[in-house]
Amino acid sequence: MLVVMGHDATEADIRRVVKVIEEMGYEARPMPGKQRTAVGLVGNDGKVDSSQLESLPGVLQVIHVTQPYKQVSREWRPEPTVIDLENGTRIGGTDVVLMAGPCSVESEAQILTIAHRLRAAGATILRGGAFKPRTSPYSFQGLGVEGLQLLAKAREETGLAIVTEALEPETVDVVAEYADIIQIGARNMQNYPLLRRAGRTGKPVLLKRGLAATIKELLLSAEYILAEGNGSVILCERGIRGFDDHTRNVLDLTAIPVVHALSHLPIIADPSHGTGIRSKVIPMARAAVAAGADGLIVEVHPDPDHARSDGAQSLWPEQFEELVEQVAGIAAAIGRRLAPPLAGVPA
Amino acid sequence: MLVVMGHDATEADIRRVVKVIEEMGYEARPMPGKQRTAVGLVGNDGKVDSSQLESLPGVLQVIHVTQPYKQVSREWRPEPTVIDLENGTRIGGTDVVLMAGPCSVESEAQILTIAHRLRAAGATILRGGAFKPRTSPYSFQGLGVEGLQLLAKAREETGLAIVTEALEPETVDVVAEYADIIQIGARNMQNYPLLRRAGRTGKPVLLKRGLAATIKELLLSAEYILAEGNGSVILCERGIRGFDDHTRNVLDLTAIPVVHALSHLPIIADPSHGTGIRSKVIPMARAAVAAGADGLIVEVHPDPDHARSDGAQSLWPEQFEELVEQVAGIAAAIGRRLAPPLAGVPA
Amino acid sequence: MLVVMGHDATEADIRRVVKVIEEMGYEARPMPGKQRTAVGLVGNDGKVDSSQLESLPGVLQVIHVTQPYKQVSREWRPEPTVIDLENGTRIGGTDVVLMAGPCSVESEAQILTIAHRLRAAGATILRGGAFKPRTSPYSFQGLGVEGLQLLAKAREETGLAIVTEALEPETVDVVAEYADIIQIGARNMQNYPLLRRAGRTGKPVLLKRGLAATIKELLLSAEYILAEGNGSVILCERGIRGFDDHTRNVLDLTAIPVVHALSHLPIIADPSHGTGIRSKVIPMARAAVAAGADGLIVEVHPDPDHARSDGAQSLWPEQFEELVEQVAGIAAAIGRRLAPPLAGVPA
Amino acid sequence: MLVVMGHDATEADIRRVVKVIEEMGYEARPMPGKQRTAVGLVGNDGKVDSSQLESLPGVLQVIHVTQPYKQVSREWRPEPTVIDLENGTRIGGTDVVLMAGPCSVESEAQILTIAHRLRAAGATILRGGAFKPRTSPYSFQGLGVEGLQLLAKAREETGLAIVTEALEPETVDVVAEYADIIQIGARNMQNYPLLRRAGRTGKPVLLKRGLAATIKELLLSAEYILAEGNGSVILCERGIRGFDDHTRNVLDLTAIPVVHALSHLPIIADPSHGTGIRSKVIPMARAAVAAGADGLIVEVHPDPDHARSDGAQSLWPEQFEELVEQVAGIAAAIGRRLAPPLAGVPA
Repeated sequence: MLVVMGHDATEADIRRVVKVIEEMGYEARPMPGKQRTAVGLVGNDGKVDSSQLESLPGVLQVIHVTQPYKQVSREWRPEPTVIDLENGTRIGGTDVVLMAGPCSVESEAQILTIAHRLRAAGATILRGGAFKPRTSPYSFQGLGVEGLQLLAKAREETGLAIVTEALEPETVDVVAEYADIIQIGARNMQNYPLLRRAGRTGKPVLLKRGLAATIKELLLSAEYILAEGNGSVILCERGIRGFDDHTRNVLDLTAIPVVHALSHLPIIADPSHGTGIRSKVIPMARAAVAAGADGLIVEVHPDPDHARSDGAQSLWPEQFEELVEQVAGIAAAIGRRLAPPLAGVPA
Repeated sequence: MLVVMGHDATEADIRRVVKVIEEMGYEARPMPGKQRTAVGLVGNDGKVDSSQLESLPGVLQVIHVTQPYKQVSREWRPEPTVIDLENGTRIGGTDVVLMAGPCSVESEAQILTIAHRLRAAGATILRGGAFKPRTSPYSFQGLGVEGLQLLAKAREETGLAIVTEALEPETVDVVAEYADIIQIGARNMQNYPLLRRAGRTGKPVLLKRGLAATIKELLLSAEYILAEGNGSVILCERGIRGFDDHTRNVLDLTAIPVVHALSHLPIIADPSHGTGIRSKVIPMARAAVAAGADGLIVEVHPDPDHARSDGAQSLWPEQFEELVEQVAGIAAAIGRRLAPPLAGVPA
Repeated sequence: MLVVMGHDATEADIRRVVKVIEEMGYEARPMPGKQRTAVGLVGNDGKVDSSQLESLPGVLQVIHVTQPYKQVSREWRPEPTVIDLENGTRIGGTDVVLMAGPCSVESEAQILTIAHRLRAAGATILRGGAFKPRTSPYSFQGLGVEGLQLLAKAREETGLAIVTEALEPETVDVVAEYADIIQIGARNMQNYPLLRRAGRTGKPVLLKRGLAATIKELLLSAEYILAEGNGSVILCERGIRGFDDHTRNVLDLTAIPVVHALSHLPIIADPSHGTGIRSKVIPMARAAVAAGADGLIVEVHPDPDHARSDGAQSLWPEQFEELVEQVAGIAAAIGRRLAPPLAGVPA
Repeated sequence: MLVVMGHDATEADIRRVVKVIEEMGYEARPMPGKQRTAVGLVGNDGKVDSSQLESLPGVLQVIHVTQPYKQVSREWRPEPTVIDLENGTRIGGTDVVLMAGPCSVESEAQILTIAHRLRAAGATILRGGAFKPRTSPYSFQGLGVEGLQLLAKAREETGLAIVTEALEPETVDVVAEYADIIQIGARNMQNYPLLRRAGRTGKPVLLKRGLAATIKELLLSAEYILAEGNGSVILCERGIRGFDDHTRNVLDLTAIPVVHALSHLPIIADPSHGTGIRSKVIPMARAAVAAGADGLIVEVHPDPDHARSDGAQSLWPEQFEELVEQVAGIAAAIGRRLAPPLAGVPA
């Protein structure tokens, strides 16, 4: 439930609304906006009698949020959420953002080489796994904190922002220390302690849709992060489980306009995991942008044939350059643009 | 298996290859091409000893087709199939083709009204069901032959080509009499007697992917049509069964580049059935073209709220005009163009 | 909608109800029962005003059927449908029926050999494909009418009833001439002209669930047969499409109690197609009977390694004997029994 | 890779094998068995040259494990794993084990009442959630440690063993302190830090299959636990995501014989989550046992209509009694028996 205050509502009016909500046994969340302030009533509001709130001074209207997710819904917040990164990248506005990099951080040479290439090609965010969730316990599990340090070094040299995955609540804080965006992977979409801890860091969170997750479940997982007071969530469609072995997953691009209708949060697409095949990444990157994606996250490796993970779906750097050119054209065709490349000379 | 003849192979050389193949107990299918002639050996060729064929005069090489589908494969025919309709529309080349119209033909006024609107908007092919496959026996089943006659009248008035569905082998011929393209619906993708009969008409066939069909199964169903000597097949991705009720189906756009890699046949997309929601048709139409679709088939109705079937996913005519404008931009961004509108003044 | 007549309703009362329904523009279907007669109102009855019917003499009550399927629903007919075959087998009562045989009829020796083995093991119905729907046009397509004749010969020699598939409307009548039960395969579950034609033969119809069919869609397809006045429909769960390649399909056994709750029609299971692996057929046959299946249809071949189709999932005859023994124990444990073996000496 | 020692191999022989494996850069895991000792070589063994090991004294043979999962495979350990609980229950042998209880522990009265009923009905293991993973952040999240204490009290009073879920690595140890079996829920099947931490406790782990997990992925997740030296893993089929809303999930019972063929680990079924509907729990419990399940985990609540979670799928206590009776009959029919009820008078 959302209590919308009028233009002329005073601070005292707002405080009174908060107090009444709390007396009713719920949590109140004031949300100052450009035009007006609203106060959210958080929790299962099915049984709340709104008349008590409607009659308070300064209250314009009370909006009942019909979905089980509340703060992520468009009813709660009609304008799109825009997330500003320190390097100037804005996610969720008219810009289409490019995140790219290797599946795993493997070495200083690898990550620095690719970071420079990607920056030159126009990416503004560097992806790279330091903690890797691997299906087999015998596969390479990532460089851990050393990987995070190498990512930080790449940021220092190039200005690229860093997105990297956190696997467990205990290491969220160390990831948050190095990353600009904390990634929650598809396998952990319903790892609620992890979501909560990531929410509490206050850092932007990239939340990937689980392989069998409905859109409602995705939004409810995002709600866990917003319920911690962190509204900087970027959703990501990365393919759902399918029955055809021609592709690794089924990239469900319709999820993009569906999410945009239901939620104010930005949503990007991952054509690398979504297809699992290098030659399909570029066409599906184009399709994702055409469908309205607010960005892409793409696996690019300086030498995919020798990648320690996900080589078969990683682009060669020159393919990424081609991707940038093609999606720039698509973005322009629908009245958007790629997020502007970083200014200045890299170190 | 494909026996490729050299540039200087004579008619007698070709006849000898045919004869040897037939003596081996297989069927031979000569395929004269622009550059060279090839002779296909049709049937399960796993055990064929190709050495006998390789040594015949005029034979350049023998290509083993590794897939269970043969004539639909890129190995069999490297260049894309282009299908020329009488009204000048070319399907499978660089043009992106627009097929549009109501789910069902309902009346003369309805189909003529919409046909004129669609032609004016730039479509060159009119869709409309006369024989409708309906999940319930108590739903409207289409106008039958009367529907076909109304479609023919719309073609006469507007020049639009007609695509309409055939439901059973017995009525394929009557559909072929009126239609420029015979549609085989998703429910009938593995209705083999229907595929065979459609193949024998020689008319172009639009084959929709079944809800649970793998791409291999789709191509093998197309093979049934080519095996009848009819190479004019247009494939169509129209959504697979999914687990999320936000959309009617999951539009699997990755199927488009996958099919293009495996087969020379054109493939289009149906964002109407693929999403089931009017507001998602335009973004997914854009995405399909960005992914490389050779065309779109879209449900448009003059008055969707009163449509006798599929109203919820049918566009209003003005939305179709918007769709055309948007996909034209996408096509241009990837170096293609919309199929040129029909010239001349409609009757 | 179902108009239930009182015990003392006269023939004239019933005729009047029929007349009023027809005057309302619907079709009336009188259904004399053991205890009472009911008159079904067929068609979309969402808008029918039932008060007119309720006040007619002899009318006890008017039941609104809430599902889109009508005549297949439990609301329409509370008692289970029991189908009596000429050889004494009863499908849909307390007996658990065994249908078994090869995927395809291959030769007289093959079908007679296996028929005798199966009869001796306790099966009462012989399965065998004469018209085969094959994914590839180059695979063995069945012996056609010759296959039907061989099945008839096997029936003559053993007394086993025959179930075999019809693929197209045009050949339904010839299949009906030879078969005791007409099978509609999973690929044709929504081939409505075929369903209608099979319905019109009056013969029992075995309707297999499609790979991506919901239970509602399965019941609506059955409704097409009942709408032709043929109530002898046996449903069959045979596996739905899944994402795991350890099995060919996912045998959805919960469909059995779900169907029993929604419909009065019998439902059997096909553990051969449902798993696709010989070693999994017996455990899943046990599970199906434990879940409440009214019968099983199982592929058994005298020499599976040389079967012309589906060899990998066909049981050896001795495995079928083991299956019979095991499912007999399961049936007994839940208060049912296997359908009694055929009496008398086979020719 | 598994190095199998001969009957007459000495301790020194075994130590030498361990040493050589470690010198090769792998981890060695000696596994003393009843008949013979084996030494496992853990890690990706694709490139290992086994000849060096084969020639060592005392080595009988070297078995290459062909699957990506190693220690969970039947190749690694041919005999079934049997897990002995302190209260005498044995999981994985011929006994079929019954785990039952409410979705969530709600109060002392609730859990003690149901525990006594379940013990009287024949269950030997009590389930009940203290830490609950809930799709919505606003749903009841469980009583936490208080819930664990109530479970312990129920064990004290009834002798029932306790199975309860751990949600995050940090609380695994406190769960292990109270529980006899640590449950890893479906959402956490690929939460690798959680699997590792649960493995390290040495306590038996109940690992539920994820909604979209293949059987290979399930076994690889189990491998994470075995890789920590903990072989007491019980797998659980609890339904996969499906497309039909008649059931909450699709209970994939074929997974049971498939797992038994691939792995030595026991596997049980959860017909409550697998169907989501109270009336389908008993038939699917019967089917699971008929398919070969080593046990069942069933939701039972003293008052399902007022359950704080999963009420719609929870059995009434008297329904559980009926379930016990029915599955006892099924177990007997396949030569198994229910695990014997606990002896002695409960406190």
